[in-house]
Parts: sequence; structure tokens; C-alpha cells
Amino acid sequence: MTRKVLKFGGTSVANIERIEHVADVVAHRARNEGGGFAVVVSAMAGETNKLVGWTKEAAGDGLVGAEYDDEYDVVVSSGEQVTSGLLALALRKRGLRARSWLGWQLALRTDEAHGKARIKGFEGEGFAEAVDGGEIAVIAGFQGVDDNGRIATLGRGGSDTSAVAAAAALGASECAIYTDVDGVYTTDPRIVPKAQRMEKISYEEMLELASLGAKVLQTRCVELGMNNNVPIRVLSSFADPGDTHAGTLVCNEDEIVEKQVVSGIAYSRDEAKFTLLGLDDHPGVAAEIFARLADAGVNVDMIVQADARREGRQNMVFTAPDRDAELARRTLEDARSEIGFEELEVNRDVAKVSVVGVGMRSHTGVAKAMFQALSAKGINIAVIATSEIKISVLIDAAYTELAVRALHTAYGLDAE
Amino acid sequence: MTRKVLKFGGTSVANIERIEHVADVVAHRARNEGGGFAVVVSAMAGETNKLVGWTKEAAGDGLVGAEYDDEYDVVVSSGEQVTSGLLALALRKRGLRARSWLGWQLALRTDEAHGKARIKGFEGEGFAEAVDGGEIAVIAGFQGVDDNGRIATLGRGGSDTSAVAAAAALGASECAIYTDVDGVYTTDPRIVPKAQRMEKISYEEMLELASLGAKVLQTRCVELGMNNNVPIRVLSSFADPGDTHAGTLVCNEDEIVEKQVVSGIAYSRDEAKFTLLGLDDHPGVAAEIFARLADAGVNVDMIVQADARREGRQNMVFTAPDRDAELARRTLEDARSEIGFEELEVNRDVAKVSVVGVGMRSHTGVAKAMFQALSAKGINIAVIATSEIKISVLIDAAYTELAVRALHTAYGLDAE
Repeated sequence: MTRKVLKFGGTSVANIERIEHVADVVAHRARNEGGGFAVVVSAMAGETNKLVGWTKEAAGDGLVGAEYDDEYDVVVSSGEQVTSGLLALALRKRGLRARSWLGWQLALRTDEAHGKARIKGFEGEGFAEAVDGGEIAVIAGFQGVDDNGRIATLGRGGSDTSAVAAAAALGASECAIYTDVDGVYTTDPRIVPKAQRMEKISYEEMLELASLGAKVLQTRCVELGMNNNVPIRVLSSFADPGDTHAGTLVCNEDEIVEKQVVSGIAYSRDEAKFTLLGLDDHPGVAAEIFARLADAGVNVDMIVQADARREGRQNMVFTAPDRDAELARRTLEDARSEIGFEELEVNRDVAKVSVVGVGMRSHTGVAKAMFQALSAKGINIAVIATSEIKISVLIDAAYTELAVRALHTAYGLDAE
Repeated sequence: MTRKVLKFGGTSVANIERIEHVADVVAHRARNEGGGFAVVVSAMAGETNKLVGWTKEAAGDGLVGAEYDDEYDVVVSSGEQVTSGLLALALRKRGLRARSWLGWQLALRTDEAHGKARIKGFEGEGFAEAVDGGEIAVIAGFQGVDDNGRIATLGRGGSDTSAVAAAAALGASECAIYTDVDGVYTTDPRIVPKAQRMEKISYEEMLELASLGAKVLQTRCVELGMNNNVPIRVLSSFADPGDTHAGTLVCNEDEIVEKQVVSGIAYSRDEAKFTLLGLDDHPGVAAEIFARLADAGVNVDMIVQADARREGRQNMVFTAPDRDAELARRTLEDARSEIGFEELEVNRDVAKVSVVGVGMRSHTGVAKAMFQALSAKGINIAVIATSEIKISVLIDAAYTELAVRALHTAYGLDAE
């Protein structure tokens, strides 16, 4: 039988009124589409923050890591537990059979990395049987149970991941992620009013867009969908529940007939550019630099080694999230003598703009078009990085909107 | 090894500051007394009401019974879950080993009567092993798991019951119930300032006092303690944690050396008196009356059949909670012809005053002393009922305080 998974986030279940609306959407779909339904819910917006605040207060500053994370999970997972029970009641009120399922009841097995656990798989058949029997399974998202029988939460974006994992376990035909946007756009509509909602996008493209700052879906959730071949539909909680083609479908590249050379333009302002001048030119110096940054927890992105040696010295450029800029600067300055460099320049006034598209694999000239479009607007490129389906450039942050608009037009993405 | 169970109610864990205080008390006792400790906690005061309000809102008026109770349990049990995690963190902050235990983790097995489940027993050894290993077990009270693996709550006073059940499962030497009173008194200190805290009281006496309206411990919890021979200590959350004799110990009669003839005076103003006049005097009439009241959910207490027959007719007097007075009146009036009575008088202006003491079993003259003391104050007795360790009288409600004071003095209970 056809099984479907629907997921509703925190703002979609923020209060009883919103939960009633979610119940209406689910009831409409269950009555009209037939088949089995599982619904994954987040905590009511605001509840998680309240619970996290309490755990921090109770624990104080001294408790960290294993001394904190397991009980954090016990407290914080209660938020999704509450929503699952409430939605089950609201569905029953509409004459549907429904029941809540908590992580340990499913059982959704995880590893023991409390607070950011990874899913190992589903155990037990009761859940799938209930869904096939016509009972709507209301799943508390974000939570599972580890091998010690303790609650483990999945970390940021965990409820989306729960939903895709449930869809994989059920062999669902689709996992619908209801959220506060109505799909994935060719770029940020706040910058480009002519941005278009995509009907379909491949997992690979979505991964590049997600990691580039299009915050619709978390990377983990898309990866899980890709690995298990679960089509993920991103749509608005307020979409017509009868429109089963609403939003954007994230799916296998093969299912996209009309492949765009470039599907979307992403940007990120949370960037900082680091330039190490007069670096000792000896083997291992790059390893030294990036090992220190990794140990400090700095997530380095683009790296360019400029071939401009003079007197046995060279320059190195890399980028990292702007929020880590100070940490990265201190880490490098503290190791100045060990690494051996003359000067460190940090520019926090930069942005990264990227064009993404699976069509790039078979088309040439994508990079050329990008550089021409930027050049025509007088935008200087500081760093370039490429992958198989993506070209990213680092530019002066002041030019971000201009660059995004120029590229959106250049690749023919503007709506008519 | 010695095992102890401590229980803290909702007002004792109302916020993080109070939870910190509870952690101080537990830490003090664990460090000074040695042995294994389990701590049972309620939801933070106010949380349960909030959660119950949400479930009612989500369910609307239409869902009742089985359609409501299981998901009510899922939502409401989250309150104790939160407190257990927070207290575990607060104990760890004090350098103690601690972890939370939820109902399904223990596992505390219950029947399937959601919302008012009864405990069937503890499964699994992990909990006792952890306690013996020196880790403080912080148990979410009020909750268990039924045979279907669903959360079931224990109803009113459920956390006290959880605590006594845990103490029974552990073979604990004592179950300390920390609350907002500092023990069980010979009567209500608001009425009799000379009321004294009892050092010890038998389970049987406590049961009579509990069911008579001394709201310190729920009947179920005392029964469970009695059946499993678990001494229960009632004491204030603010008692000196070093004073292991604080509060009142509810224990076996055999452990009380100096038995009082009368241990305490209880009263209840939630009483209504019903008089059926001119009742048909035929077999089965009493069965007819009380079956109808039972079906309507009226909890009848004292029953007196006055032997004052005239022309084949008699009178019958009984009492019921005042909150059921209107329901009882309607039930009887609706069946007037089937039952066959001339008149129904309802007096809602009555109170029940009771003297309780295991010493009554071996002492005569207790009733005589009661009637003399009341008579000396000009208090008229409307109904009398007795059990092995209790004598109750129904009087005009206006005389309640006077009666309680007179009896407290008459039985020598006034403090010096």
C-alpha cells in the first residue's frame, strides 16, 4: 500500500490553533488520498528554548559533554512528546484513528552521541503495522533511543531527519516537509523578486544549496533522503492540502526530465577571508595551519594557495564562517612562530556567491558565463572554488545582491 | 545495603531555585547517611495544569475515556520527565553520580487504566543495580508503562504512590515524602493551635485520617506502604536534612511502643445529610436506594436505618459528599415512585468529626468520652458511625471547630 510521511515544524504547531490547522491538513489528505500516513512533529515553537534554558540553569557552567548531554535529551525531548499527544487528540476529534509514537516506542535506534545522535535504524514492526492498519502514526520527531535504553536527540534539524528516516523505514512514496516557505527557490526571493519556485531539484543540488545557506532543509536530512531514495517535498503548511504537487520535490536526478544547466544561485554573508602573507615555503606548512584550525573547531571552506613565491615565501588564502573569524585569528596568531608567516590579513566584509546545477556536468562555459556576468557589473572576484555541480566565488559583501541578480538573469532563471 | 527513597512534590520542585534546594537536601543525605538513594519527583508546580489545559483544548468536549486518556498520559507525563532530568543535572553539579529514570525505563508496569492506572510491579534490574552502585536514581513519578508499551499515569497522588512502589521494589528501609507540611498532626493546627506533630502513626490510623480529609497522603499510597511494609516518613522540604527523625513516620502498629487510645481528630465539611421519610418497609428497599446512588456515582458514607416504624413505614438517614448533594437529590427524586418514600430532606449544613486511634481496640469508654465532651459543649449529634479504630459523628457545621477543640482536649492531645 502507499505510505506517506508528513512533517510539521515548530512554527506549524506553535499553539493549539496551529495544531488544529495541521490536523485539518492531515485529515484532508488521509481522507482524499487513502493509504497509510505517518506524521512527524516538532516541539511547539518556544518550548524547546524554554527547556534548554532550564537544563542550562540546572546544570550551571561546570557540566559539559557526557555529564550534561544525556539529561539534556531527557528534558528537551519532552517538547516533541507533548506535541505528538496533542496532535493525536486533534486527529481523533476529527474522527480519525491516530496515536502518538515516541522515539523509544518506534523504536528509532541511535548511537550514543547525546544531543546530536545519528540514526542507526528502526526496530520493531508495530509502527508500520499500525500505519498499514489505517491508524495515523503521530511521531515525536527529533528523538530516538540508544542501545542503553536512554533517550537521544538528533540535534539541529532533527525532526526533518526523523521524518526522512521514518519514510525510509516505511518505504514511503514521499516525505512531505511542511514549513513556513512554499518551496525551494532559484534564489532568495527577498533579493530577486523574479526568483522562481522549482518544481523539482536533485538531492545533489539541494545538498549544495543547503550547505551554502539556503536554510530550507538540513544537509543531514537531504543526505538521508538521497541514500534511501526517499523523495522529499518541501511545501507550506498553508498549501492547499488537495494539491499534491505543491512546493518543491527533492528527488533523484533521473526523475528530473528537463535538467537546468544552473538550477539556483545561493549566497552566504557569514564568510571571512584570511590571507597569510610571507608564509614559509616548506612541506607540511599547509597541514600545520589547517590542523590547528580544525583542532580549534574552525570550519575552513575555500582554500587557495597563490603561486606567487618570492625569496622562498608564498601566500595562502582561505575562508571560514565569519562567526569563527576571531577564533581563527587568535589560533593563527598564537602559532605564528611555529607556522612561520609574516602577516595575517582578515577581511570580514566578504560574501560567497555560488551557482549550482547538475547540468554543469555536461555543459561547458558555465564558469565563463559567471565571470562575464560579474565582470559586466564591475564585481571583482577574490577567490574561486569549484565542485562538479557548483562554482563559488568570494566577492566584496557590498556587491552580494547585485551579483545574485546578475547571475539569476544571466542563467535565464528570471520568471517571465 | 541500606536503600532509601525520597520523594519531592510539585511545590518542592516548582522552579530551578527549588530544584537546587532539593539537590542540596539529597546531596547532604547521600553524603552523610551512605547507602543507595532513589529520588522520586513530581512535575514542576503549574506545569501539569498547563499540560492538562492543552490536552483538553486539543481534544475538545467530544473525546472521553479511551479516546482521550492514553494521549492525555503521553502529554501530561512529560512534566515529571522534565523534572527528573533537571534534578539529575543539579545533583551532578554537586559532584554526585545521578541519572533520570522514566516510567518505561524502570520499568514500572501498570494496568491499562490510563489516567488512573494501578501499579502491577517493577520489571528489570537496572534500576536497583544503579542504586546499589552508588548512582542516585532520579525517578519521574506519576508514570508507568502498560503491557502495550504505552505511558500510563497513576492519577491523583500518583507520585507518592510511585515513591512507595519504588521503595517496596528496592526493599528500602524508608520512603520519605517531602512536602509543604512538617508532618501529620493530631488535628488541623489552624483550628487547634495546641495540635501536636505525631512522631509515629500506624498505617491503619493514617488511612482513616487520609480518607477523612487530612490531605497529607493519599489513601492508595498508604495502602501500598501497609501491604509492602514500607515505613513512610512525611516531612517538610525545609526540614534539616541531617535530622533523620524529622516529620512523622507512618509505620506498622507493632513499631509504635506508646500507643495512644486516640491519635487524632479529623473533620470534614464536605458532607450532606439525606433523610428519607415514610419509606416503604419491604425487603430490598435499601438495595434499591444505594444501587441507584452508586450507579449515579454518588459515594455514600454513613448509613443509619432508624427503627421508628409506623404503619409499615420507616425512615432512613445517610450521608454523601456535599459536592454530590444535588446529584443525589435528583437521583432519588427521579426514582421516588420506584423506591417509595414520602419525603426527602437534604441538609447540606453538616460536618463530620471523627476520633481515630488503634488504642480503641483495647480500650473501652472512648465513645462515652466523645459523647460527653460534645454534650458538655451543647453539640447535638445527628448520626454516629463506628469502625474498629474510629468513631465519627455528624453535627451541625457551625459547631465544627468547637467540637474538634473539645475532643482534642478531652483525649489529652493538647500540647503542654
